[in-house]
Amino acid sequence: MSMDGVRVGQGFDAHRFASPGSGRELWLAGLEWPGQGEGVEGDSDGDVAVHALIDALLSAAGLGDIGGLFGVGKSSQGAGQHGIPMLERTVAHVRANGFEPQSASVVIIGNRPKIGPHRAQAQESLSRAAGCPVTVTATTTDGMGFTGAGEGIAAIANALVLMRSDR
Amino acid sequence: MSMDGVRVGQGFDAHRFASPGSGRELWLAGLEWPGQGEGVEGDSDGDVAVHALIDALLSAAGLGDIGGLFGVGKSSQGAGQHGIPMLERTVAHVRANGFEPQSASVVIIGNRPKIGPHRAQAQESLSRAAGCPVTVTATTTDGMGFTGAGEGIAAIANALVLMRSDR
Amino acid sequence: MSMDGVRVGQGFDAHRFASPGSGRELWLAGLEWPGQGEGVEGDSDGDVAVHALIDALLSAAGLGDIGGLFGVGKSSQGAGQHGIPMLERTVAHVRANGFEPQSASVVIIGNRPKIGPHRAQAQESLSRAAGCPVTVTATTTDGMGFTGAGEGIAAIANALVLMRSDR
Repeated sequence: MSMDGVRVGQGFDAHRFASPGSGRELWLAGLEWPGQGEGVEGDSDGDVAVHALIDALLSAAGLGDIGGLFGVGKSSQGAGQHGIPMLERTVAHVRANGFEPQSASVVIIGNRPKIGPHRAQAQESLSRAAGCPVTVTATTTDGMGFTGAGEGIAAIANALVLMRSDR
Repeated sequence: MSMDGVRVGQGFDAHRFASPGSGRELWLAGLEWPGQGEGVEGDSDGDVAVHALIDALLSAAGLGDIGGLFGVGKSSQGAGQHGIPMLERTVAHVRANGFEPQSASVVIIGNRPKIGPHRAQAQESLSRAAGCPVTVTATTTDGMGFTGAGEGIAAIANALVLMRSDR
Repeated sequence: MSMDGVRVGQGFDAHRFASPGSGRELWLAGLEWPGQGEGVEGDSDGDVAVHALIDALLSAAGLGDIGGLFGVGKSSQGAGQHGIPMLERTVAHVRANGFEPQSASVVIIGNRPKIGPHRAQAQESLSRAAGCPVTVTATTTDGMGFTGAGEGIAAIANALVLMRSDR
């Protein structure tokens, strides 16, 4: 085997929390987080962790980004969709183009929800959808910036994929 | 081959948009983006995507950062330079130190320019300059933070390099 | 050797500078930076570069994050601790779980301290603690956002680890 077939990708996403009282569900890292406040705005479920992971996988494989795969806006194929099926479709697209997801990781930056209690569950469903180990960490910004002010959530992800011929 | 020779690097950069009417050209990801508003401030062309990629490659190879290679300020070697020649010189330096760029990826965070229509062209010229596949994604921050307010552009990059003896 | 045992991790951290006159020491990237202004708030020494590296290593190995390993708050095991011993303990934990750190990199984002003059020393002590090459770069945000306003420091890190059986 040669190392020539390993590729790295970077992903980022940020979404604004919906107004209190909007009744918007909070979805993040492939799970719903009931009782943790309003969800975020977006045409899909606004799952910034999954969206950053999707961009990390797509960029590693040289396949553009989430807007190119799912479209943008209320009539896009991502509209109303949850993160896990979007991630599954991304991985199918990555594989159809000759790459295999190898490993991915995402940091969630925001005041809520508290990730720790459901980290294992999130990692399990993300890893199953991605077909490779996916890990989730979380942190805050000590009250600084838009995440610290509670305006929204951000996520930074990276991923490795392998060209299939190299496996 | 052993995996011992693979190294990962992280890069980040952010620059402020120049004042409207400054006539500053907008350069990003190695291209000029005419008709997409003012460019950004900086001694070089202020191409945050290329600068983040350069830092990702230099840090992967343990060669410091862009300020160390090109200097800082109006008399620096980067002053007035565009991203592609700076990236080419970086890769020559990486190779002269025994490493070979393997893969790199950059996320551009900002309200403009719209990357999609010229993504393929940007990736092609960045990849040619880097001597390895380089991919570009782009996203916004939903109006939040300094990128959402249109104050400037940020970029996060990562890169893999290989020690030449391991190839 | 197969590539199946390589894993990538992402880390992020941000801390607020302590009030002027607090007498708080400034620790970053495993070093103290005397004469470069107040340190940052936090139960440990608030070393965002090391904390981001720890999260990158833990997430690469699928071992949760810094809060899970050291606890959170004034009674946590990280309380009052400096970055290097925390990084050493992290690496021991990563190894005890069958992974070997391979490479890591961190970008520090903030107005101070100036990293360049002590980069080599920081990289040396971080690499010794991590048992693999660790590199440090630094940048500012041109006066934008919370780092540009001098409110605090942020750090983005990535890391590669190998499953021991694959070495």
